Amino acid sequence: MKPILVLHGPNLNLLGMREPDVYGSLTLEEIDMHLVALGQELGVEVRCRQSNHEGELIDALHDARAWAAGVAFNPGGFTHTSVALRDAVAAIGIPVVEVHLSNVYAREEFRHVSLISPVCTGKISGFGWHSYGLGLRALVEMQGRV
Amino acid sequence: MKPILVLHGPNLNLLGMREPDVYGSLTLEEIDMHLVALGQELGVEVRCRQSNHEGELIDALHDARAWAAGVAFNPGGFTHTSVALRDAVAAIGIPVVEVHLSNVYAREEFRHVSLISPVCTGKISGFGWHSYGLGLRALVEMQGRV
Amino acid sequence: MKPILVLHGPNLNLLGMREPDVYGSLTLEEIDMHLVALGQELGVEVRCRQSNHEGELIDALHDARAWAAGVAFNPGGFTHTSVALRDAVAAIGIPVVEVHLSNVYAREEFRHVSLISPVCTGKISGFGWHSYGLGLRALVEMQGRV
Amino acid sequence: MKPILVLHGPNLNLLGMREPDVYGSLTLEEIDMHLVALGQELGVEVRCRQSNHEGELIDALHDARAWAAGVAFNPGGFTHTSVALRDAVAAIGIPVVEVHLSNVYAREEFRHVSLISPVCTGKISGFGWHSYGLGLRALVEMQGRV
Amino acid sequence: MKPILVLHGPNLNLLGMREPDVYGSLTLEEIDMHLVALGQELGVEVRCRQSNHEGELIDALHDARAWAAGVAFNPGGFTHTSVALRDAVAAIGIPVVEVHLSNVYAREEFRHVSLISPVCTGKISGFGWHSYGLGLRALVEMQGRV
Amino acid sequence: MKPILVLHGPNLNLLGMREPDVYGSLTLEEIDMHLVALGQELGVEVRCRQSNHEGELIDALHDARAWAAGVAFNPGGFTHTSVALRDAVAAIGIPVVEVHLSNVYAREEFRHVSLISPVCTGKISGFGWHSYGLGLRALVEMQGRV
Amino acid sequence: MKPILVLHGPNLNLLGMREPDVYGSLTLEEIDMHLVALGQELGVEVRCRQSNHEGELIDALHDARAWAAGVAFNPGGFTHTSVALRDAVAAIGIPVVEVHLSNVYAREEFRHVSLISPVCTGKISGFGWHSYGLGLRALVEMQGRV
Amino acid sequence: MKPILVLHGPNLNLLGMREPDVYGSLTLEEIDMHLVALGQELGVEVRCRQSNHEGELIDALHDARAWAAGVAFNPGGFTHTSVALRDAVAAIGIPVVEVHLSNVYAREEFRHVSLISPVCTGKISGFGWHSYGLGLRALVEMQGRV
Amino acid sequence: MKPILVLHGPNLNLLGMREPDVYGSLTLEEIDMHLVALGQELGVEVRCRQSNHEGELIDALHDARAWAAGVAFNPGGFTHTSVALRDAVAAIGIPVVEVHLSNVYAREEFRHVSLISPVCTGKISGFGWHSYGLGLRALVEMQGRV
Amino acid sequence: MKPILVLHGPNLNLLGMREPDVYGSLTLEEIDMHLVALGQELGVEVRCRQSNHEGELIDALHDARAWAAGVAFNPGGFTHTSVALRDAVAAIGIPVVEVHLSNVYAREEFRHVSLISPVCTGKISGFGWHSYGLGLRALVEMQGRV
Amino acid sequence: MKPILVLHGPNLNLLGMREPDVYGSLTLEEIDMHLVALGQELGVEVRCRQSNHEGELIDALHDARAWAAGVAFNPGGFTHTSVALRDAVAAIGIPVVEVHLSNVYAREEFRHVSLISPVCTGKISGFGWHSYGLGLRALVEMQGRV
Amino acid sequence: MKPILVLHGPNLNLLGMREPDVYGSLTLEEIDMHLVALGQELGVEVRCRQSNHEGELIDALHDARAWAAGVAFNPGGFTHTSVALRDAVAAIGIPVVEVHLSNVYAREEFRHVSLISPVCTGKISGFGWHSYGLGLRALVEMQGRV
Repeated sequence: MKPILVLHGPNLNLLGMREPDVYGSLTLEEIDMHLVALGQELGVEVRCRQSNHEGELIDALHDARAWAAGVAFNPGGFTHTSVALRDAVAAIGIPVVEVHLSNVYAREEFRHVSLISPVCTGKISGFGWHSYGLGLRALVEMQGRV
Repeated sequence: MKPILVLHGPNLNLLGMREPDVYGSLTLEEIDMHLVALGQELGVEVRCRQSNHEGELIDALHDARAWAAGVAFNPGGFTHTSVALRDAVAAIGIPVVEVHLSNVYAREEFRHVSLISPVCTGKISGFGWHSYGLGLRALVEMQGRV
Repeated sequence: MKPILVLHGPNLNLLGMREPDVYGSLTLEEIDMHLVALGQELGVEVRCRQSNHEGELIDALHDARAWAAGVAFNPGGFTHTSVALRDAVAAIGIPVVEVHLSNVYAREEFRHVSLISPVCTGKISGFGWHSYGLGLRALVEMQGRV
Repeated sequence: MKPILVLHGPNLNLLGMREPDVYGSLTLEEIDMHLVALGQELGVEVRCRQSNHEGELIDALHDARAWAAGVAFNPGGFTHTSVALRDAVAAIGIPVVEVHLSNVYAREEFRHVSLISPVCTGKISGFGWHSYGLGLRALVEMQGRV
Repeated sequence: MKPILVLHGPNLNLLGMREPDVYGSLTLEEIDMHLVALGQELGVEVRCRQSNHEGELIDALHDARAWAAGVAFNPGGFTHTSVALRDAVAAIGIPVVEVHLSNVYAREEFRHVSLISPVCTGKISGFGWHSYGLGLRALVEMQGRV
Repeated sequence: MKPILVLHGPNLNLLGMREPDVYGSLTLEEIDMHLVALGQELGVEVRCRQSNHEGELIDALHDARAWAAGVAFNPGGFTHTSVALRDAVAAIGIPVVEVHLSNVYAREEFRHVSLISPVCTGKISGFGWHSYGLGLRALVEMQGRV
Repeated sequence: MKPILVLHGPNLNLLGMREPDVYGSLTLEEIDMHLVALGQELGVEVRCRQSNHEGELIDALHDARAWAAGVAFNPGGFTHTSVALRDAVAAIGIPVVEVHLSNVYAREEFRHVSLISPVCTGKISGFGWHSYGLGLRALVEMQGRV
Repeated sequence: MKPILVLHGPNLNLLGMREPDVYGSLTLEEIDMHLVALGQELGVEVRCRQSNHEGELIDALHDARAWAAGVAFNPGGFTHTSVALRDAVAAIGIPVVEVHLSNVYAREEFRHVSLISPVCTGKISGFGWHSYGLGLRALVEMQGRV
Repeated sequence: MKPILVLHGPNLNLLGMREPDVYGSLTLEEIDMHLVALGQELGVEVRCRQSNHEGELIDALHDARAWAAGVAFNPGGFTHTSVALRDAVAAIGIPVVEVHLSNVYAREEFRHVSLISPVCTGKISGFGWHSYGLGLRALVEMQGRV
Repeated sequence: MKPILVLHGPNLNLLGMREPDVYGSLTLEEIDMHLVALGQELGVEVRCRQSNHEGELIDALHDARAWAAGVAFNPGGFTHTSVALRDAVAAIGIPVVEVHLSNVYAREEFRHVSLISPVCTGKISGFGWHSYGLGLRALVEMQGRV
Repeated sequence: MKPILVLHGPNLNLLGMREPDVYGSLTLEEIDMHLVALGQELGVEVRCRQSNHEGELIDALHDARAWAAGVAFNPGGFTHTSVALRDAVAAIGIPVVEVHLSNVYAREEFRHVSLISPVCTGKISGFGWHSYGLGLRALVEMQGRV
Repeated sequence: MKPILVLHGPNLNLLGMREPDVYGSLTLEEIDMHLVALGQELGVEVRCRQSNHEGELIDALHDARAWAAGVAFNPGGFTHTSVALRDAVAAIGIPVVEVHLSNVYAREEFRHVSLISPVCTGKISGFGWHSYGLGLRALVEMQGRV
């Protein structure tokens, strides 16, 4: 199985330093380490990337066409506003799972709408960093089906 | 760890018999068998229940207060219309994970709104019967945190 | 030709006893007798059922898969609120005609929207109990086309 | 019983020549012949008229006041936009049944709204050319009641 | 002073014959006679025209550019739906007063919106046939100011 | 015939001093003098009142019940926001004509909505101070009909 | 005076066990006892019923036609979603008072809308279990007026 | 217990003189006498005040901070439009019960929205002058709880 | 290549005579002459037609089925309101390019919505009479592709 | 430089006595003293006025035309509802700065909309009583520019 | 004539590799070559640029102020979401033509709204890569007019 | 006191070169010089930064956590569209004041909504470059309070 890209959107570099009661106390580095380890357990290489720049996230999705079996993608604040990211997800032709740390449906109403969900394979939200882990599992389990 | 309730809402009794390209070819019985087996693997008893009656689903949620560690709940068509089920989920004080077989966000717009999501722990959609399996894992992994 | 199910939703058991200027002065029993007679004229058996319980209506639709050529369905107040009934109609794979006694478009605005219409074969409203009769005819005439 | 006017709105002159999978393969002439024959069976004269001009349809409705027992009216694309036709229907004081070939509720959302329905006796949609036939029957059966 | 055009839109030819409690018992001819007489009193020739055809109303407005000092226009049901009439009113460069027999704001909500009002000089509604008379006066009184 | 109340709402005391291109160059006093003179011509006493206080306008309407044949009322900015004034107009049981100096439909969208129109006899807007004059005429002409 | 039905909707069986800061610490049984006692004081028999099933609540309302002077009804989560219950209230022809424990207008926006209010005699909310008591009094005081 | 303020908003001074079928045939004075008597029965002094002026109602609420145990407030037409009254209710720190004579939910849609409800203790509507009486009882019964 | 129809909707007969700063100073005749000449340059016959009547525009589109390779259509004010024209465009099965003289997106909001765009091949707006010329080129260049 | 009017709207007389965590602990008198002192520092006389009456605020704005260089205006709850105050601000022809103590955008959604902002010079919110001070500075600094 | 900038927004670098049935089979390089050749034919230099970064597109527009006669701009997914690009287009003071490959009006509704259209000279959509070519022509033909 | 960051969003680098009647004639450099000087007067170091790239603005806000006492932030066109910037402002835990040169409430409606305001300390708009100056003062005056 090809590697999986874990892609973190804007402000996620502040994890662990910012509102730990909402987002948990793990830093992004610690989460990435957990995910690489889980990947090893599941027999798949996990590569992680974060950016606050919409254009760099688009570039990263384009780049993944060449080497990734799928993407676990937390688009952060771009979830609700970026048609360009939606088009990138739709264009690359590999499965993308949308993940969110918090239960977005228990927060402000503008967070309930995702422009990206309709072109993803599935969506997982509300389980803290486990959301990423469940996304990895989903990509592995769905392998061959999509 | 206490048992987990897998609760299936209306029309899910027709699984495998109805639009298999949308909902997969497994019957509800087969899915339940998969979930019971996965529960054994995860060290937790899984009990399954289906009803087409909103009132019975409310009763089942109330009943689970006494014995369940959590609920993996697919509210089916009631997802978008039932305040009463929302109130039941909010009232029982145990974690409930909302699961959907299909990616509801790629379907009709009225399916994008869930009255139940805001009072759940998290939400998983789009992975066929694996959505339930990921929900079980989430309940086990979140154990002790909620 | 297989039998046809005439399915009456909530409050229709009060017909003849409730606002006769809106709903006519025939009781539900009298309407059912008229429909059975019309069925005989058209050469088709007509079976009638009423319930105030959404779940029982779903069960009845599921049940009809086994024996009915089609359904003439007056969902009453559930017309405007029940995604679960819509999913049931979509799932059973036999033609369903939505019927209403009154012209719903001349009443309160919330009655103009039907969640069920998009998955029905057709819709007939405004002709009192004749709406059911026209629905029976439609099911017979469309036979072989749907 | 006085004659019945069957009134066809814009683009219906193209029937049979245009998207037969949506509108059926009968031409307007063939449908009119079926309806005249059905009228004879029901003991009522049927007169048919088509126009792409809103003003001519209004004139036709006004004209029918003098001689028609009722109108089976398919307003086509004017259904959703013409207050003037609505006012004409309301003004003429004879029963008008709104008919549509296709199930408008399974098509684009702007087709779900009819400005004309609230002032009609009833509405029948989704049964191809049978919609007109059912409309004729309804007008005959309701005779004396309206 | 040049003549004034009184322009009646769709269905107004039925005045006096249709819902007299809403629209009064005068026929259109009688109203026109009253208006011609009022014009004489005010020293202005009044010419009256009615059509159920949107295109003919547009043509009549275009034509009035050549000879009319202003227009008292009751667009009837086109009030709420016709951008083409709005553009015609805006294009002809002579004052147009919108008039309505009934108080449209006490009727259905869709009658509250007029596409034509923003390009008229003023609007008068609710006074039966006197609305036209007040419109004539307004055109005469505003003469030289617009 | 009883006297007529001309009632001016908020900011109309600034007439002639404020944006004369929008509201004309006559002061409120000058307008009132014109209206009193027009009343004499029409054989009716005209009494004028202005207030910037919503409560005083309500009191004035209540007071008019005792002595006025009708009211020509320019509610100014309260037009769009005051349910209390609407209730007052509805309660007093004498005809009220709503008048506006400018064509409110050619201005900001929030000015298009009037809470007061539905309970008035009629509405006149866009003719500068002549709107009041036309309102007086309307009240006299409608006399005996309302 | 005939007896009064106190009808409790979904989840109210959990009263006293669920969020006591929102709903108070009395159990449903205790509230019913208070209401029976108040009934005795007011000289009227009080009968109490609770169900989580929409259909059973409809049946209970239908049943009350035969014996009740009125109903104090807390529709719980069905308040905002059930046209069928609205139709039942409208059909039974005895006064129904809608009651709520909490001030629904200080909670989520979807709780502000009640489909049932327009067909009730009146509505009382925000006074904990006293809302029921005030409802009983209202039914007794209005007796003979409705 | 401190006295209770009964505060009547705009147009309520016309009670008994205005649409008795909607608002009842008692005058405001008669209602106030009933309420004072009911207060005596309940052991609490009742003071009544009416104004058509929003500012005076705000002043009255501010004033009540010094001496009242609570307020039974019918804001009349200001209910739907006054943020300033809402802020006054929120600011004074004593319980306010919103009361309405008629069932506002069976009237025009703009009457369904109350800006004031979210900051009140509770709301009672639909029982004619008894709404005030029930409000007094509620204030007495809730005493000590708020 | 078959000829191309240039179809002008309502009010375009006034071009050059009406608001030249918005619509340019060329008359419709002059524009048609330019387009015929451009057609000769591109090797295609251009036939031009204008009408203020919606029905005539529908007829013209129907007629073009027999002889035209495509249509450059400026629906004028009907753009925003005519479902019947939309259905005509969809029915004729030849490419239609929607053209507008002005940049409709810089004008009133109701001009932004076109009912006709979704069934056209493409849309060109904002270039004065050149919009038609570009439409002709587009039809020629797309030839064979559509 | 002419004096500056500081105008306080409804409920601001309760400052310091009401929700000090939201509005601060200074009384209105103390704030006014701070502002007079700041005015002296900036070389401008500051005059302060408060009213709970919309009409008095309109009168105060009208009055300021004669003597003030500008107005720092906190319209309180009228911000969101008063077209009459908006018209007054627009009419007086001197710069008005809208100020708010709290960050209205972090409060209820209805507080986000201001009818008054579009006709003010600028807006300052969120800095407690400093909002007024910044407003004074802005009026002084902008002097000669507006 | 100065050169023309062809500016491609996000994801357009994938052209030819992504959904060829929607976007055509030409790569971006091939399209750019066609456009440079067309420029030579029209006597104008064409310079092409693509970026997935909103900021780089803004910078490119700013940069074009110095040397370009106009811009043919396909903003891709930013069309519907970027006020910053709109402001950049409005700020640079040279004509910008908005182009789209596909007919955006036949796709998802969120693609129908363009924040950028109101500040462009014109808009061309639906003709595949020819949309760019028509845009070049439009810029050349409008030269001297804008 | 720590330094203050003045952060300018997209297109502000064009200040003085672009629509000077809207945005003033000072260049960004000149404004920055004024602000540095004002900072010296207030005893605080001012550091200025501009970017057209959303990602760089996010990075700049993150960076400011380490050294800034607060931020005066003009998000330009991102104000209305960027959830990511909102999240960045919320995450950094230092006060941010939103500033705008123009009165955004007197411009297009989409400029009235700011996604960023709810997480800022306060907002200042409409005073040209003085808006920044007032923002600096606000940050200094609020020091110690936030």
